[in-house]
Amino acid sequence: MMRFDIVTLFPEFFASPLSSSLVGKALAKGIAEVNLVNPRDFTTDKHHRVDDEPYGGGVGMLMKPDPIFAAVESLPQLSRREIILLTPQGETMNQTLFQDLTRCEQLVLICGHYEGVDERVAEHLVTREISLGDFVLTCGEIPALTLLNGVLRLLPGTVAKADSLKYESFEAGLLDYPQYTRPAVFRGWEVPAVLRSGNHGQIAQWRREQQQERTCDRRPDLYKVWQNEADLE
Amino acid sequence: MMRFDIVTLFPEFFASPLSSSLVGKALAKGIAEVNLVNPRDFTTDKHHRVDDEPYGGGVGMLMKPDPIFAAVESLPQLSRREIILLTPQGETMNQTLFQDLTRCEQLVLICGHYEGVDERVAEHLVTREISLGDFVLTCGEIPALTLLNGVLRLLPGTVAKADSLKYESFEAGLLDYPQYTRPAVFRGWEVPAVLRSGNHGQIAQWRREQQQERTCDRRPDLYKVWQNEADLE
Repeated sequence: MMRFDIVTLFPEFFASPLSSSLVGKALAKGIAEVNLVNPRDFTTDKHHRVDDEPYGGGVGMLMKPDPIFAAVESLPQLSRREIILLTPQGETMNQTLFQDLTRCEQLVLICGHYEGVDERVAEHLVTREISLGDFVLTCGEIPALTLLNGVLRLLPGTVAKADSLKYESFEAGLLDYPQYTRPAVFRGWEVPAVLRSGNHGQIAQWRREQQQERTCDRRPDLYKVWQNEADLE
Repeated sequence: MMRFDIVTLFPEFFASPLSSSLVGKALAKGIAEVNLVNPRDFTTDKHHRVDDEPYGGGVGMLMKPDPIFAAVESLPQLSRREIILLTPQGETMNQTLFQDLTRCEQLVLICGHYEGVDERVAEHLVTREISLGDFVLTCGEIPALTLLNGVLRLLPGTVAKADSLKYESFEAGLLDYPQYTRPAVFRGWEVPAVLRSGNHGQIAQWRREQQQERTCDRRPDLYKVWQNEADLE
């Protein structure tokens, strides 16, 4: 059972996302456990202060290092562990990273807040810095939730049919093909005839072509990587 | 006041993320309103069926088109509106996209589930397809929440000091510089002397250098874009 420890000033944020839908079911089944820990509970001053002004000036407040170190050091320590700071300055999340992280027994996820986190946390406490994408959010809770969801989804038992993981976007290096379900004609828009032909060879070929076409069209960056890899084979 | 309509099979997912921290405060202040609409409430069959098998075969279920069309068509329609499908096949979210979307009056966010959404939704209902990143999640609720957070954060009044938006990552095309707060020495690790010097010119220069160095080091892709733009000026 994988253990997630989420270090957050807003543990209440996670209540409904961790209890609804597939994630709620996976946690109820014991595929993973999630522990929430609040740095505010590890402050030693009267006012339970977790933030302070930046050295060198600038607007906004930073998260102080000491309550974060203390919160992380309070946790039990499993052997294959990563301590991750969610920050726009980190490496960008992708499917390969999620796959790698499934090998861990314990993921400690530190959620930033305010204008950021004292750099000594990144320098001396964490093993990785990971970014959700090239944008700024009000909090690190959303990136932590994303990482948890993407990794948990890959653990055996979360998604009912393990096979359904294989054909999806990014696992093959290409975008997914278009998919259709009933009704066959909706408001005059028909499902492509080939998908209703029953010819499995043609269907597989159509899907491969669609994947390549739309990846080339929408994501030339991914397509180039895929082409280079295909050439090597 | 911006209006967000979230089309979701799991409205309960949003309860705690929309009520906690800065987002909760911004919504309480009336900076935006969020309306949740469930396609299941727009099914016309006895079993309230929202998913069905894919044409052409394959594992997993797809979201049917009709309840999604009906849910979106039930909404009031403001003039500057985007109807967005959250899908790994879309354009990747970034700060520029969030900035663009602040010009809308209404953002309708359609959350996918199961193996995906009938393609006719992308073809005939939505105005944009947007992806959170190159990975797969169990649900579109997390990408919708991310987009809402990133856009809401840019609306006047959400972040206390408007100035604090200016200097952050990606708005300038570079990663952020390292930041430090008290204590000046923590477990023997000192805050860089320049930040405690009081010399504002030197501090500004050190920060610029740090931004360029770490962007070059960690994100050569961003650095290249930044360099090209700097050359043009």
